[in-house]
Amino acid sequence: MRGNSLPELGVGLIGTGFMGRAHALAFHNARTTFDLPFNLKLVALADADAARAEKCAASWGFGRSHGDWQQLVSDPSVNLVAITTPNLLHFPMAMAALEAGKAVYCEKPLAVSLEQAREMQAAALKAGVVTRVGYNYQHNPIIGLAKQMIEGGELGRIVSFQGEFSEDFMGNGLSPWSWRCEEAHAGGALADLGSHLLAMARYLLGDVDAVCADSQTVHPQRPATRGSEEQRAISIDDQTYALLRFANGARGTFGSSWLKHGYKNHLSFEIGGTEGTLSFDQERLNELRLYRAGFPGRDGFQRILAGPAQPGYASFCPAPGHQLGYNELKTLEVHELIQALGGQGSNGTDFAEAMEVERLATAIRMAAKEMRWVSISDI
Amino acid sequence: MRGNSLPELGVGLIGTGFMGRAHALAFHNARTTFDLPFNLKLVALADADAARAEKCAASWGFGRSHGDWQQLVSDPSVNLVAITTPNLLHFPMAMAALEAGKAVYCEKPLAVSLEQAREMQAAALKAGVVTRVGYNYQHNPIIGLAKQMIEGGELGRIVSFQGEFSEDFMGNGLSPWSWRCEEAHAGGALADLGSHLLAMARYLLGDVDAVCADSQTVHPQRPATRGSEEQRAISIDDQTYALLRFANGARGTFGSSWLKHGYKNHLSFEIGGTEGTLSFDQERLNELRLYRAGFPGRDGFQRILAGPAQPGYASFCPAPGHQLGYNELKTLEVHELIQALGGQGSNGTDFAEAMEVERLATAIRMAAKEMRWVSISDI
Amino acid sequence: MRGNSLPELGVGLIGTGFMGRAHALAFHNARTTFDLPFNLKLVALADADAARAEKCAASWGFGRSHGDWQQLVSDPSVNLVAITTPNLLHFPMAMAALEAGKAVYCEKPLAVSLEQAREMQAAALKAGVVTRVGYNYQHNPIIGLAKQMIEGGELGRIVSFQGEFSEDFMGNGLSPWSWRCEEAHAGGALADLGSHLLAMARYLLGDVDAVCADSQTVHPQRPATRGSEEQRAISIDDQTYALLRFANGARGTFGSSWLKHGYKNHLSFEIGGTEGTLSFDQERLNELRLYRAGFPGRDGFQRILAGPAQPGYASFCPAPGHQLGYNELKTLEVHELIQALGGQGSNGTDFAEAMEVERLATAIRMAAKEMRWVSISDI
Amino acid sequence: MRGNSLPELGVGLIGTGFMGRAHALAFHNARTTFDLPFNLKLVALADADAARAEKCAASWGFGRSHGDWQQLVSDPSVNLVAITTPNLLHFPMAMAALEAGKAVYCEKPLAVSLEQAREMQAAALKAGVVTRVGYNYQHNPIIGLAKQMIEGGELGRIVSFQGEFSEDFMGNGLSPWSWRCEEAHAGGALADLGSHLLAMARYLLGDVDAVCADSQTVHPQRPATRGSEEQRAISIDDQTYALLRFANGARGTFGSSWLKHGYKNHLSFEIGGTEGTLSFDQERLNELRLYRAGFPGRDGFQRILAGPAQPGYASFCPAPGHQLGYNELKTLEVHELIQALGGQGSNGTDFAEAMEVERLATAIRMAAKEMRWVSISDI
Repeated sequence: MRGNSLPELGVGLIGTGFMGRAHALAFHNARTTFDLPFNLKLVALADADAARAEKCAASWGFGRSHGDWQQLVSDPSVNLVAITTPNLLHFPMAMAALEAGKAVYCEKPLAVSLEQAREMQAAALKAGVVTRVGYNYQHNPIIGLAKQMIEGGELGRIVSFQGEFSEDFMGNGLSPWSWRCEEAHAGGALADLGSHLLAMARYLLGDVDAVCADSQTVHPQRPATRGSEEQRAISIDDQTYALLRFANGARGTFGSSWLKHGYKNHLSFEIGGTEGTLSFDQERLNELRLYRAGFPGRDGFQRILAGPAQPGYASFCPAPGHQLGYNELKTLEVHELIQALGGQGSNGTDFAEAMEVERLATAIRMAAKEMRWVSISDI
Repeated sequence: MRGNSLPELGVGLIGTGFMGRAHALAFHNARTTFDLPFNLKLVALADADAARAEKCAASWGFGRSHGDWQQLVSDPSVNLVAITTPNLLHFPMAMAALEAGKAVYCEKPLAVSLEQAREMQAAALKAGVVTRVGYNYQHNPIIGLAKQMIEGGELGRIVSFQGEFSEDFMGNGLSPWSWRCEEAHAGGALADLGSHLLAMARYLLGDVDAVCADSQTVHPQRPATRGSEEQRAISIDDQTYALLRFANGARGTFGSSWLKHGYKNHLSFEIGGTEGTLSFDQERLNELRLYRAGFPGRDGFQRILAGPAQPGYASFCPAPGHQLGYNELKTLEVHELIQALGGQGSNGTDFAEAMEVERLATAIRMAAKEMRWVSISDI
Repeated sequence: MRGNSLPELGVGLIGTGFMGRAHALAFHNARTTFDLPFNLKLVALADADAARAEKCAASWGFGRSHGDWQQLVSDPSVNLVAITTPNLLHFPMAMAALEAGKAVYCEKPLAVSLEQAREMQAAALKAGVVTRVGYNYQHNPIIGLAKQMIEGGELGRIVSFQGEFSEDFMGNGLSPWSWRCEEAHAGGALADLGSHLLAMARYLLGDVDAVCADSQTVHPQRPATRGSEEQRAISIDDQTYALLRFANGARGTFGSSWLKHGYKNHLSFEIGGTEGTLSFDQERLNELRLYRAGFPGRDGFQRILAGPAQPGYASFCPAPGHQLGYNELKTLEVHELIQALGGQGSNGTDFAEAMEVERLATAIRMAAKEMRWVSISDI
Repeated sequence: MRGNSLPELGVGLIGTGFMGRAHALAFHNARTTFDLPFNLKLVALADADAARAEKCAASWGFGRSHGDWQQLVSDPSVNLVAITTPNLLHFPMAMAALEAGKAVYCEKPLAVSLEQAREMQAAALKAGVVTRVGYNYQHNPIIGLAKQMIEGGELGRIVSFQGEFSEDFMGNGLSPWSWRCEEAHAGGALADLGSHLLAMARYLLGDVDAVCADSQTVHPQRPATRGSEEQRAISIDDQTYALLRFANGARGTFGSSWLKHGYKNHLSFEIGGTEGTLSFDQERLNELRLYRAGFPGRDGFQRILAGPAQPGYASFCPAPGHQLGYNELKTLEVHELIQALGGQGSNGTDFAEAMEVERLATAIRMAAKEMRWVSISDI
């Protein structure tokens, strides 16, 4: 809980869409849920639609609103700039905030090109501030347990990774075009979904050395809008598959698809070691599936439920089986960010790490285009 | 979102434990998430520990704090009193609030005896205010879907109900005594867990006509505290099972246990009709399992994921598969309460309905004690 | 494998329906799969339809055929009489075989009334021969593992049993009448399905002391045949539920229904102890679900796959995960029977035990009819 | 059922190991279960161990036995030669049988090299006889349903395939060397396990055009025997992953591993189309998981149970949910073979198709070795 003697941390949020509201809720809930090292202030909310900014600011508890995000960035009482705008705007906004010496919390993907991402990383390094990118799935307490098991050697030496992030919102040819179909906006199944999985793979297993991949545009044209007769040509990937070689020696497969019917948020993976196997599916985010060798006759995959034994969970629910939701992963992400701002060691995704995710995705894209293995070190 | 021209609704919250914080979060998140018919104000927070009340009020965004709950109840700017204190205190607090003409939002169970519950119901009726009791599991959007299917006849005529609420926190004889082991505090597996299931059964299928039951104290003594050598005699039920006859003709079974190992929040049920079957488990609160007759060769239980098609869900997540958590059910409960305060028809559990739940539990307790069938109408 | 020096065991089989063929296959496969203590001979096959008996005898490898079962029973080269005819005929056939001093292997249920069952048990006792009744689900190797865990104390003291056997072949009012709807033929959900579950409950947990129950005829009339306009009045139970008190102190619930949509062979149970929980579903007959207390942070229900570690499995498959089928449970049942004939201690269901199952079912029937608790000792 | 007027079909079986007995049982059970177009005779059984051959012949119902398989092959009353010996012997035995004009039923893999496989295919073509290779998993009735759905267009256009066959019997470095570790014996995870999955992929989706792959020897040495201190160098693949491009346009991933802990028979796949998705796991061989688009609000993956609606199932069990076992897939395989011998169109794996499986495996091996995409047409 907040005490009066704590330093103030002024938050400025840009964007009032679904993700903007998710950030607003997360900041509030982090304040109510955790003992933070700051007196957190929701200083300002910006949206190009000034009227909407004003209305949301009142409703979400922000002190003031702006129709021009640059005013928010230059506001001296804003210490942290949170960016939830369309992907194309991440670069100019983050660069301006870094230039102004502000900490930056940017939604994923970091940028719409590897070049941008590298420039942003360099700017962050120069600014010497805390940066974070919204790969919120990593903040799931049960993912924390998975990471602890892997790093603690409970699975033995890690030898395999199978990962797939599939959804079905572009499931057939009638699903209409959107900005997600444009490469210039970081669209496509690989960038939109796959990047979450690549971030997760790196979070749990570290660097990837080399990749081979295959991408496909299944529906080369889609209606301009739902039900429209106007068709737009599509060149972005509907599905991308890859082989991965990790620096730790593990081998495996990767998939991302936005047209696999039946899946709504199937960020899933299975990690095999010489002593056990674990698997996870974001569609059941409060569960980890674990097999441990060494229990002959009493062995079998078990379902571990999220619970207070895992850091972060107990702040929301007193007992296992009660379950966290998507929005609470966001609150945990914000908590980690604020801890980092307070100087406490942490494991969030900063701009440097997010750039590595972009680099890996770029390698996959190149491998698919050129139909050959690509070393990450060559990117 | 909140507009300035809306009438004010002043909330007073009593209790700062886990459930107190859950209420505080729920009020805030309801305000941020929904367009409410009120300008919601967190007016006052009360706790017998005045220092804690003050600290929590600051952290949770309440305007003032009280060490004496009666001050909160008599505060004219408080329109709604939320009660999250130990069960014994529900009665005096709710009665005082009703006496003062306030709307009341009381945690479950309504009271520690059927007599109290009846008195509270009568007082609520006389006061003519909105009352609600915290059976939050009913506010799960996917439970709303289940209710809609049942009432819309998708399962045909309902003929069976199997329900079980099991946890394992009292799983062995070393799990220590707590107030939950005292009948005077509405303890025991039936009251503590089973009442949730009875409320759910009534919510979905309506009145129960008659019950037969069996209760057992498996561990007749438990340590006074964890690890203590001092033993306390226990007479409360560790597990209770029952047969249910519903007024709609359905028959079935009921179980509640707090010592079934492996279960953490296993409020589960299966409802069978002449055209289909559905089942649910609170440990996977975002899923409904459904079988519909009439698809020969392509039939099978299917897993329906919570999603925006169900009322309430879309306010938290834009897409299915992203999942709500326990706390969001609380937010939905608060939303329904505020809607009711605004005069919008709703289906929340008011004092009259909560009294019926107590009555049903009382019938089960009597049936078990006297080893005979008991008609609810005789209670 | 069979050696020439082994004593001969002549098998006579009555009935050529599905279950007759299942027996024929089981005898043959037992011979091919196991080292038996006998030189097994398929001596004779009887069916009231003599032509069918002859044809099946040739196809199934029996030496001769009869249109009159009494000839088979009196054939001196027949040592073991297997009965797979309609329930009404179990009594006269088994009594004649016992009278002739033959071992008897009778399909379930043992008889169509408790009186018959008691007479058959007495006759078996007097004859001093080996008898078996076809509760084949108990011969599942993974059920053997469950029994071993329970008896070995791995679950601690057993405190709860929840069992349900549901199917849906009478799922709606258009499912036609059949002999299964007649009490005189041991019809109804309790006798037809529930008796399997009662046998299983006794097999795993032993005697039941007392029961309370509720039975219902959901569809009081059904078409005489599928699609017929002629309706027949039905008085048999479509569903029966009960509370069980076991002699070992465990309490629990029982259900049997033949109109729960979606279930095809849902003989399922969950057994709770002070140290763990196990559950099973016949629809996944090669799996056991187990939770063991005492692994904090690494606990969860696990799925144990049938495998060679369990007696009997390895005779069919060399590795776990390959799975036995329904018919192999029958082969295991026959193997146990032949072992018993060879004097090897075993745990099959003999007439005495099958009579106890009938007695328990009778108690449930009486408890439902009279709406009161019934002690088994009073039956 | 067999009639006297049917032509005789004399079966000669080579090998008396686990697979030999599985064949013997399958021939017998096919005879008892199905109306065959032949009078099936179990003529002869051969094993290099003549005493064992004699003993098994007596036990399994074969007319005579041989210590020399060539005698069996040249026996004029043998019309069909079944080969269940070690992989190295498939080639000489099958070639001799074809040379003698016999139909051949050979266990998988067809041969230990693509060259052998091609020679065998050519010999089969020249002999003009029926040949079959034991990819028994394809004969699962529920796989038949999957094939029917795919070919009938129920999933729309097929766009993706994810397949994995994992087991764990070589799960750690202490699992000893066996012949399965030798390339000359067609060892390794790809050949031993993966070939089943490749055969299944071809069975369901047809030709593969191109592959890229990655193979790894995780444990470069293993004990010579269990517990031995002597170590043997290992160069065979412990795990192999691949990208697949199907001729029908579908893309996907392939995996095979014999060291993924927890899996015992995890031949699994998921097939995505523009209208739906289906998945299967051999560890639950009686189930198909299906999602069909077009049921908004009532959609979700469903579990379809094997049942009499699927060809073949009803011959073993009268009702769904009763389940077939591994050995019954073998019986179904034998049935299909005998139907083919009787001139009835069928879809079994003949030598030509089995050669294509070897060719595909060879392409994967080459792609992994040379780290490049390989077109199947170049093999």
